Amino acid sequence: MKAIRIVIIGGVAGGASAAARARRHSESARITVIERGPDVSFANCGLPYHIGGEIEDRGELALQTPESLRQLLNLEVITLTEAIAIDPQARQVTLRSVADGSESVIGYDELILSPGASPLRPPLPGIDHDKILTLRNLQDMDRIKAEVEKVDSVAVIGAGFIGLEMAEQLIRLGKKVSLVELLPQVLPQLDAEVVRPLQRELVAQGVELFLGDGIDGFEDRNGRPAALLKSGRVLETGLVLLSIGVRPESTLGREAGIELGPRGHIRVDAYQRTSAPHVYAVGDVCESPDPLLGGHVAIALGGPANRQGRTAADHIFLGERALPFRGSIGTSIVRVFGKTAGIAGASERRLQTAGLPYRTVTVNGPSHASYFPGAETITLKLLWSPEDGRVLGAQAVGGEGVDKRLDVMATAIHGRMTIDDLVHLEFAYAPPFNSAKDVINTAGFAATNLRDGLLVAVDSLADAEGQPIIDVRPPASAAALPVPGAVNIPLPALRSRLEEIDKSRPVFTVCQMGKTSYFAARILANHGYDARSILGGAHHQAPREGD
Amino acid sequence: MKAIRIVIIGGVAGGASAAARARRHSESARITVIERGPDVSFANCGLPYHIGGEIEDRGELALQTPESLRQLLNLEVITLTEAIAIDPQARQVTLRSVADGSESVIGYDELILSPGASPLRPPLPGIDHDKILTLRNLQDMDRIKAEVEKVDSVAVIGAGFIGLEMAEQLIRLGKKVSLVELLPQVLPQLDAEVVRPLQRELVAQGVELFLGDGIDGFEDRNGRPAALLKSGRVLETGLVLLSIGVRPESTLGREAGIELGPRGHIRVDAYQRTSAPHVYAVGDVCESPDPLLGGHVAIALGGPANRQGRTAADHIFLGERALPFRGSIGTSIVRVFGKTAGIAGASERRLQTAGLPYRTVTVNGPSHASYFPGAETITLKLLWSPEDGRVLGAQAVGGEGVDKRLDVMATAIHGRMTIDDLVHLEFAYAPPFNSAKDVINTAGFAATNLRDGLLVAVDSLADAEGQPIIDVRPPASAAALPVPGAVNIPLPALRSRLEEIDKSRPVFTVCQMGKTSYFAARILANHGYDARSILGGAHHQAPREGD
Ligand SMILES: Cc1cc2nc3c(=O)[nH]c(=O)nc-3n(C[C@H](O)[C@H](O)[C@H](O)COP(=O)(O)OP(=O)(O)OC[C@H]3O[C@@H](n4cnc5c(N)ncnc54)[C@H](O)[C@@H]3O)c2cc1C
Ligand SMILES: Cc1cc2nc3c(=O)[nH]c(=O)nc-3n(C[C@H](O)[C@H](O)[C@H](O)COP(=O)(O)OP(=O)(O)OC[C@H]3O[C@@H](n4cnc5c(N)ncnc54)[C@H](O)[C@@H]3O)c2cc1C
Ligand SMILES: CC(C)(COP(=O)(O)OP(=O)(O)OC[C@H]1O[C@@H](n2cnc3c(N)ncnc32)[C@H](O)[C@@H]1OP(=O)(O)O)[C@@H](O)C(=O)NCCC(=O)NCCS
Ligand SMILES: CC(C)(COP(=O)(O)OP(=O)(O)OC[C@H]1O[C@@H](n2cnc3c(N)ncnc32)[C@H](O)[C@@H]1OP(=O)(O)O)[C@@H](O)C(=O)NCCC(=O)NCCS
Repeated sequence: MKAIRIVIIGGVAGGASAAARARRHSESARITVIERGPDVSFANCGLPYHIGGEIEDRGELALQTPESLRQLLNLEVITLTEAIAIDPQARQVTLRSVADGSESVIGYDELILSPGASPLRPPLPGIDHDKILTLRNLQDMDRIKAEVEKVDSVAVIGAGFIGLEMAEQLIRLGKKVSLVELLPQVLPQLDAEVVRPLQRELVAQGVELFLGDGIDGFEDRNGRPAALLKSGRVLETGLVLLSIGVRPESTLGREAGIELGPRGHIRVDAYQRTSAPHVYAVGDVCESPDPLLGGHVAIALGGPANRQGRTAADHIFLGERALPFRGSIGTSIVRVFGKTAGIAGASERRLQTAGLPYRTVTVNGPSHASYFPGAETITLKLLWSPEDGRVLGAQAVGGEGVDKRLDVMATAIHGRMTIDDLVHLEFAYAPPFNSAKDVINTAGFAATNLRDGLLVAVDSLADAEGQPIIDVRPPASAAALPVPGAVNIPLPALRSRLEEIDKSRPVFTVCQMGKTSYFAARILANHGYDARSILGGAHHQAPREGD
Repeated sequence: MKAIRIVIIGGVAGGASAAARARRHSESARITVIERGPDVSFANCGLPYHIGGEIEDRGELALQTPESLRQLLNLEVITLTEAIAIDPQARQVTLRSVADGSESVIGYDELILSPGASPLRPPLPGIDHDKILTLRNLQDMDRIKAEVEKVDSVAVIGAGFIGLEMAEQLIRLGKKVSLVELLPQVLPQLDAEVVRPLQRELVAQGVELFLGDGIDGFEDRNGRPAALLKSGRVLETGLVLLSIGVRPESTLGREAGIELGPRGHIRVDAYQRTSAPHVYAVGDVCESPDPLLGGHVAIALGGPANRQGRTAADHIFLGERALPFRGSIGTSIVRVFGKTAGIAGASERRLQTAGLPYRTVTVNGPSHASYFPGAETITLKLLWSPEDGRVLGAQAVGGEGVDKRLDVMATAIHGRMTIDDLVHLEFAYAPPFNSAKDVINTAGFAATNLRDGLLVAVDSLADAEGQPIIDVRPPASAAALPVPGAVNIPLPALRSRLEEIDKSRPVFTVCQMGKTSYFAARILANHGYDARSILGGAHHQAPREGD
């Protein structure tokens, strides 16, 4: 039997993973990895942290080298070589050497595309200024690191995950950092109110934040770049980092007649098969079946890329006995100085775009037992389907333990769990790690209470405008962060002061975090009032810097 | 309509939670909490940490007081009063004042029993020595704290969760600590090999560990207690802390003719109903349907107690529209100095006792990206059913992030997920928080590989005794922690040195953590060898102090 010949385009997350798994299936397969750059198997996700010096040793970022992949996996690794055309009929790929432009052709039995996605660089006036950089690979990183040393200010354009990581690392280096974002919030994957603590943190750490402001173009000012904002502001700076998103590198696929999705991703099925026989696509370049909302979804993250690469290799050797990729729910996270935020599943925005009905509740809870030193507040926002209670998404912000709650929620979403399931999830509890009831249980309580009518609520103070509001916090807290127009009746006094409250019209209760106002609303409802609790509490209402 | 009268026996975790939830269902209910001690709603789980001073303020431990429960929840709280008899026919409870012994009777419509469990104090010779203490409530804590100040050595008997927490806190106070455990391992809820790192940590921190040694009795030596061990050793010490387990306080129930389980727990259904109409039981006193192994299970933990209390209150007001308790899988955790270990679901021992078939795999992985500073190794042991792949249990040990993995695994177990599900769980990945593939994904990979025959493995070096073993580590590691009888062929050299290996008999591969030996076994298998990987690696094999 002739040995199977597998060609893989792209030698980093998806490509190297596919190659490694393929080798574990077969020693006889000829496995060739084609990579445009000089490096394979590097830690893209670590790049910002080496620029800022938090990862000191550049060598840490090269997880494997072409040589080590040869040694360990007996791979043929061809670097500095670009695949420039695919012929699915002839099962051939045309290659071009980056060094000398010479071309060659390589045949395959099975082809795996993992070319990733490249940073967007829109054709704005002045975009070709040589101090406007993007970050994707080790060369970009080296370049940025060198340039950053020469300047005292940097403008980061785009406040997604990479933009935020870069802003943090640049502050770490003592630079003056401006962060510009077209949308009125950072981290547009998350809902606006969830990321407010990040915005406050950025400002508190000295980042100059420009939200809801786009870029019209760039100009040169004595060799330094200046970003021209839509608002008319001009940001003169030493260096511009563009991190406004990525575009799938799907030209190869498109030119070979492979089916693409609406935003240019290569469409694949659950085995990572494209529309062309014997051609797989994995990682940032592809869009795969959406386990949450139906249709297809493209999620540019390292975890899915690795596991999709593995899935493609499995399908080559096992056919439909392979375990299909379950689809990506976009679980992601970012640390911004002392704060952490992230999401698993769909945001409100995504559900609105998809036209799906949903309900939502936001609760606060301590990261571990409140009586044990060091607990921090975690805010958890839950979205679920009113039809069957299925959890559709979760977002969390706080410090310690945000990652834990996101991973649990991701597991619950993958397991198609409902808000009822969250009530009785049983978490590991000892005082340094948790409370007897985790904030995820609390979210389950609040969601089922909403469904069952025990919690009648509005999201925020704005929804209660012009109506009677009872602030049930202790007088000192109520005075410190007052709710305009509210009457202060602390919870312990509520039962004895009921006659002060008009029973003929709806009444709203508010507290700091949303729990005490629920308790108060229960008292009022059980006494015959039409009582509604303000979920967010005063906590998120008060406008502060960065909001 | 007459207001419903609810009586609750026990005013801490289960009892106070039931009362609070009942009040939120109804303002008119008369809710009476009977508590033997002076306190209600205190943080049992925090007691060890106040003794050691890690929780400085004693006040932090009183989450509510009888007075605050009156104010906030309009509860009738009767402390220092013991319930001494129940009459389910007459729906009456007899009470006795702790102060003066006077008796009274209280009637109920619904009764909730949450009397908890009391520390075991077996009738050993000398057990009544006044320096032999147990820890359950604030009074015990105060007493121990005062006594500890007077001594320089303490013997802790029993190395379960509380015993380990106490040992840690006592070392923190500079005491000489002996820790005695009848079984040959600490934390008998977990499997022996998983807790070895804890044992090493205890020894490293100066705890004198006596494993596999029981207590025959105690003696007085000049006012100081001495523990007489079965091995003949005598531990002279300043103070003895007994933490060898708890016994459900079910006498009340038994005497009322309520059905008990084999170990004396009150048996309940998923709504926490006992065999007596209108009598519920929650918390440490009860055993409830076992979601994992069938039958009933008693789990003495704070989370289940709180949620069972809430469930009982729900059933009183909602009947079978209430959300049933899902059963406890015993998710638990303990921090022992710099190490953390815990479990979700069943251990090997529990599955063996239940006679259920299972398979197991143990993998190691970094707590977060290995290229980002501060990553620590997590060891994760997975148990699943060979019939349908359903996950039955998980145990983890390490430092950072053990709690996260346990909570995810608990969620997966509650969701009846399988080893296939673990493969594609999508976790929040940024370098400070995780890797592109989490150790839970890795456990899923290894488990499905075992099932599918890609990974052929034995658990430990012992299983390979007398057989050819290839140590595929780099020469330096192989020399540092040598595997007796193994031939060192580093992985990169394996393909070119195949002829050194006898193809006619099984060959075992070993490395440090289990991953490289899997890679080697794949190479060998694909070249026609009967190759078996040693899962645990050399990591856990070498006997060290504390093993
Ligand atoms: C700065 C940065 C930070 C990130 N942080 C995170 C994070 O914290 N968490 C997370 O989950 N994800 C993160 N990501 C995203 C993650 O790195 C990607 O999702 C993942 O690398 C995608 O894998 P891939 O194989 O699809 O593409 P890549 O890893 O980008 O690999 C594609 C490779 O293909 C090569 N290539 C492209 N076209 C050709 C061609 N025609 N011929 C030959 N070679 C070609 C490219 O040179 C490239 O090396 C980050 C990305 C960046 C850039
Ligand atoms: C030191 C310590 C540390 C712990 N650490 C943890 C941990 O880290 N994580 C965890 O999950 N769990 C932990 N636990 C266990 C947890 O505290 C219990 O599972 C939980 O408190 C059980 O709740 P309960 O309501 O059943 O009983 P309890 O909370 O014990 O309350 C029962 C109450 O009933 C009263 N009572 C009993 N009989 C009568 C009667 N006849 N009349 C009137 N009153 C009566 C008792 O005085 C007691 O106050 C710990 C327990 C202890 C003691
Ligand atoms: C480095 C790279 C080539 C590694 O690929 P890999 O060999 O598949 O991955 P790992 O080294 O994690 O090893 C995983 C394998 O070891 C196995 N394994 C791990 N620990 C094990 C253990 N203790 N016992 C048995 N098997 C184990 C897994 O089952 C898996 O094998 P499988 O896929 O055959 O099931 C690839 O991940 C890569 O290039 N990464 C860098 C780029 C990147 O990911 N970027 C984005 C994130 S920064
Ligand atoms: C203190 C004690 C009486 C509290 O009982 P509780 O009021 O039920 O519990 P909490 O204070 O956590 O409040 C939970 C309630 O607030 C609600 N809630 C919490 N945050 C909310 C928010 N942001 N918005 C709306 N509702 C919220 C929950 O839904 C829940 O109400 P529900 O049960 O009606 O659904 C009880 O837990 C106790 O005695 N604990 C100490 C003993 C103990 O647990 N020991 C073992 C562990 S150390």
